[in-house]
Amino acid sequence: MNKKMVLFTIGKLLKVESILLLLPCLVGLIFSEKEAVSYAIVAVFVFIIGTLFSWKKPKNRNIYAKEGFFIVGVSWALLSLFGGFPFMLSGEIPSFADAFFETVSGFTTTGSSILSTLSNMSHASLFWRSFTHWIGGMGILVFTVAFIPIASGRTMHILKAEMPGPIIGKLVSKVHVTARILYVIYTVLTLVQIILLILGGMPVFDSILNSFATAGTGGFSMSNVGIAGYNSAYIDAVITVFMILFGINFNLIYFFLIGKILPVLKSEELRGYLGIIAVSTILITINISSQYSSYLKAFRYAVFQVASIITTTGFTTANYDLWPMFSQVILLLLMFVGACAGSTGGGIKVSRIQMLFKHAIQELKRIVHSRSVTSLEYEGETIAPKTIGNIHAYLVLYLLVFVGSLLILSLENIDFQTIFSAVATCINNVGPGFKAIGPTGNFGFLSDLSKLTLSLVMLAGRLEMFPILLLFSKSFWKT
Amino acid sequence: MNKKMVLFTIGKLLKVESILLLLPCLVGLIFSEKEAVSYAIVAVFVFIIGTLFSWKKPKNRNIYAKEGFFIVGVSWALLSLFGGFPFMLSGEIPSFADAFFETVSGFTTTGSSILSTLSNMSHASLFWRSFTHWIGGMGILVFTVAFIPIASGRTMHILKAEMPGPIIGKLVSKVHVTARILYVIYTVLTLVQIILLILGGMPVFDSILNSFATAGTGGFSMSNVGIAGYNSAYIDAVITVFMILFGINFNLIYFFLIGKILPVLKSEELRGYLGIIAVSTILITINISSQYSSYLKAFRYAVFQVASIITTTGFTTANYDLWPMFSQVILLLLMFVGACAGSTGGGIKVSRIQMLFKHAIQELKRIVHSRSVTSLEYEGETIAPKTIGNIHAYLVLYLLVFVGSLLILSLENIDFQTIFSAVATCINNVGPGFKAIGPTGNFGFLSDLSKLTLSLVMLAGRLEMFPILLLFSKSFWKT
Repeated sequence: MNKKMVLFTIGKLLKVESILLLLPCLVGLIFSEKEAVSYAIVAVFVFIIGTLFSWKKPKNRNIYAKEGFFIVGVSWALLSLFGGFPFMLSGEIPSFADAFFETVSGFTTTGSSILSTLSNMSHASLFWRSFTHWIGGMGILVFTVAFIPIASGRTMHILKAEMPGPIIGKLVSKVHVTARILYVIYTVLTLVQIILLILGGMPVFDSILNSFATAGTGGFSMSNVGIAGYNSAYIDAVITVFMILFGINFNLIYFFLIGKILPVLKSEELRGYLGIIAVSTILITINISSQYSSYLKAFRYAVFQVASIITTTGFTTANYDLWPMFSQVILLLLMFVGACAGSTGGGIKVSRIQMLFKHAIQELKRIVHSRSVTSLEYEGETIAPKTIGNIHAYLVLYLLVFVGSLLILSLENIDFQTIFSAVATCINNVGPGFKAIGPTGNFGFLSDLSKLTLSLVMLAGRLEMFPILLLFSKSFWKT
Repeated sequence: MNKKMVLFTIGKLLKVESILLLLPCLVGLIFSEKEAVSYAIVAVFVFIIGTLFSWKKPKNRNIYAKEGFFIVGVSWALLSLFGGFPFMLSGEIPSFADAFFETVSGFTTTGSSILSTLSNMSHASLFWRSFTHWIGGMGILVFTVAFIPIASGRTMHILKAEMPGPIIGKLVSKVHVTARILYVIYTVLTLVQIILLILGGMPVFDSILNSFATAGTGGFSMSNVGIAGYNSAYIDAVITVFMILFGINFNLIYFFLIGKILPVLKSEELRGYLGIIAVSTILITINISSQYSSYLKAFRYAVFQVASIITTTGFTTANYDLWPMFSQVILLLLMFVGACAGSTGGGIKVSRIQMLFKHAIQELKRIVHSRSVTSLEYEGETIAPKTIGNIHAYLVLYLLVFVGSLLILSLENIDFQTIFSAVATCINNVGPGFKAIGPTGNFGFLSDLSKLTLSLVMLAGRLEMFPILLLFSKSFWKT
C-alpha cells in the first residue's frame, strides 16, 4: 500500500474539515454564543494535525482500490471523531460516546440523536449538526476531490469507496469535473429548497438547517417537535418533494438538467423507486385512514413518512408508532430498501434489490428452461458476473453486520422491536426507529457499548460495508 | 414437461400416503377409538385418487429437473391437504385452515400447532401428527424411491428437489440404494432412541411419538407440557443428544458407521455446527444462570433449547420467553442457521452460511490483493460459481418470502416480536416462536389468512424455496 499517499490524503481531508468547522464558529459569533470558541479551538487543532499528516508531498501519488477503501474508512472515522470534539469542549454533549454517536449520525446522514431536548443547544452546534448532514450526504471526499487537486488521475478509486451504489458512472471523462458538477447540482437544489421554505414562512435559520438535513437525507431537527412544529401543509409538501428528489440518482438529475430526458424516462431504478413510494403511500393511507379526519390528511402524513423513510432522511410529522402494525412493517421494510444509487440516501438501494431479484428470477428460470441461459440485463446493459458477485457479498456482509449488532444491542434487555429497529435505522442511515427510539424517543438511554456499536454500524452502512469491515482485517493494515 | 410421468408419480405417492394412513387407523383400533374410522375412510379415498392418477404407465419415464421440482412441489401440497382430512372428518380439528396448517406443520417437521389443548386428542391422531414428522423428515419421495421403482434412472432429480442442502451427494452409485441406506440408518437410530426413552421410564406410546418427532426434527408434543412434563434429566439428555444427531448430515453418519472416520473429522460443516451449539450454549448458560439454582441446571436447559432450536426440532423444556433478551436473540438467530445439509433439520443450513461467508470474505480479499483471485474451496473441494449463484438466489428468494409473509402477518396487528418470530419459526421449520406463539402459546388465534400464509411458508422452507415458488410461475405450468 502507498502509505505516504494515504497519510497525505487524510491530512488534506482533515484540513478541509478544519475549514468547515469555521462555519459553525461564524454562526456562533453571529448569535454571540460562547460555543464559537470551542469550534475555533477544534478548527485550529484539526488544522495542525492535518498539516502534520500532509507535511510531505509523496512522489508516488497513485491511489488504487485498496488505498481508496483505506482512506475512506479511516478518514470517515477520524472526521467523526474530531467533529464531535466541539460538543464535548462546549459541554453541550459532555460524554465521548454521545458526542461520537451524534457526529457519526450527522456525517453518515442518519439523523439518530442522543439528545432528549434540543432547546438548550447553541445555534452554532445546531448548525454544525445539520451541516455535517449536508457534507456527508454527497461525501467529503467527493467535495475534496472536486476542489483540491490531490492524486494523479486515479481519484476514481476513492470516489468509488465513498459513493453509494453498486455501479458508479462518470458524467464526464474527468473525475474532478464530475465531482464538481455533482456539488453544483447539490448546492443549487439546496438553495432552491431554502428559498421555497422561507417563502412558506419558515424562519431563515430553520430553512437553511432543514434544507441541509433534507439534501443530505439526514433528518436532524432543530427542535423536539421537528417538522410537525411548523404545522404547515405547504412546508410538508415542499420537504416531501425535495426528500424524494434527493433520493434520485444525481446522474439522472444531471441528464434531466442538460435536456437528456430519455435515460431519465427509461431508468429502471427510478421507476422502481417511484413505484415503491406510490404503492407504499396508497397502502398506508388506506391503513391509517380511520385515525385521521379525512383521506387527504391521511395521505399527507402517509406520503411524508414514506418519502422520509425510503430516502432514509428520517424527518417525521406523525408518530407512526401509533399506526397499525401493517403500516409499521411497511415503513420498517422501506428502511431496508433505501433510495437510489448515486443519491445522498442510504439503505440497500433500489438498484441492488432489483438486480438481486433479477438474478434470483433467472435462477428460477434456469430450472424451467434448462437449455437457455441468458445474460443478466439491467438499465439496458449486461451486468458482469463480477458485479453480481460483489452485490451478493455486500448483502451477506450487510446481514452479518446486522446480526452481530443485534446481538450486542440485545444486551440492553429491552423489547425486540426497539433493538431490531435501532440496528435497522442505523445500518440504513434513516434516523428514528420504533418504540423507545421512535419518533418521540431518542438514543440517549442506551449504554456506551450500544452507542459505539451503532456508530460503527452507521459508518458501515453509509460506506456500504467494505471500507469499514476492511479496517478490522489484519492483512489490510500490513500490506 | 413430461406431464404423464408427473401425474403417474404423484399418483404413486398418494398410494403410499394411503398405506401410511392405515397406521394411525391401526393405533385407533388398538385403543378402541372411533377416530380409526376417519383414517380408514380417508385412506380408501386417497388410494382411489392415487389409482386414478397412476392408472396409465407412461412410455416415456424420464424425469428431469423441471419435472422433479414440479412433482415435489405439488405432491407435498396434496399430501398435506389429504393428510389433514382425518382431523376434519373426526371433528378433532374441524376448520380446514387449521387442519391444513397442522398437517403441513407435521410433514414439514415444523411442529407449530394450532391446538390449545392436546388432552382430548385421540391416540390415532396424536400418532398421525408425530408420524408425519417422521415421514417428512427424511422425505416421502426419498421413501418412495427407496422401495418402489418409479422412474428409469433419473430419480436423482426428484431427490434433489426434496432433500435439504445446496449439494446432494450420493452414497452409492444407484439412487434407490442410497435412499434405502438413508432410511435404514434413520429407522435404526429412531429405534435406539425409542429404547433409550423407554429405559428412562417414559411410557412406550410416548417414547415412540417423541422419537418420531426427534428423528424428523419436528417437535409436536403429545401433551401441553411437552418434554418438561417427564421432569427427568436423563430424558432431557437423551433427547438433546438425539436432536443433535439428527441434525447431522446422514452421509457423515453413514461414513462413521462403515468406519470411514476421516471425512467425519474433517467436515467443515460438522465442526461449524457443533461449534455454534457449543458457543451458544455457553453464552446462554452464563446469561440465564441467575434464573436457575445452579450453573448445571442452567446448562441443562440452555443446551436443550439450543439443540432444539438449531436443529429446528422445537421441543421446549423451559419457557425461554422469560429469559433475558440476549438469550432470546441467540435462539432467534439459531432458527435461521438451522442444522446441517442432508439432515432432517430445517433452516438455512450451516453449510450454506459457511459458503456465503467464504464468498463474502473472498470478495473482501479481492480488494486487498487485487491480483490473486483464488477459487472458492469448501469441504476440500472447489465450489462451482453455479453453486454459489444458486445459494445466493436461494438467499434472496428466502428473504423475499420472509418479507412478504411478514407483511401479511402484520395485518394481525399484534406485537412485532410475535409476527417476526412466527415467520421465522415457520420458514425455518422450527415450531414455537416468541410471545403469543412462544413455548406456552400456540398458533390457533391467528386468522385463516395468516394460517394459510404460514402453511405455504413452511412448505417453501422445507423444500428450500424453489419448488413452491415455481408453482406460482405461469410458464412453469404451461411448458
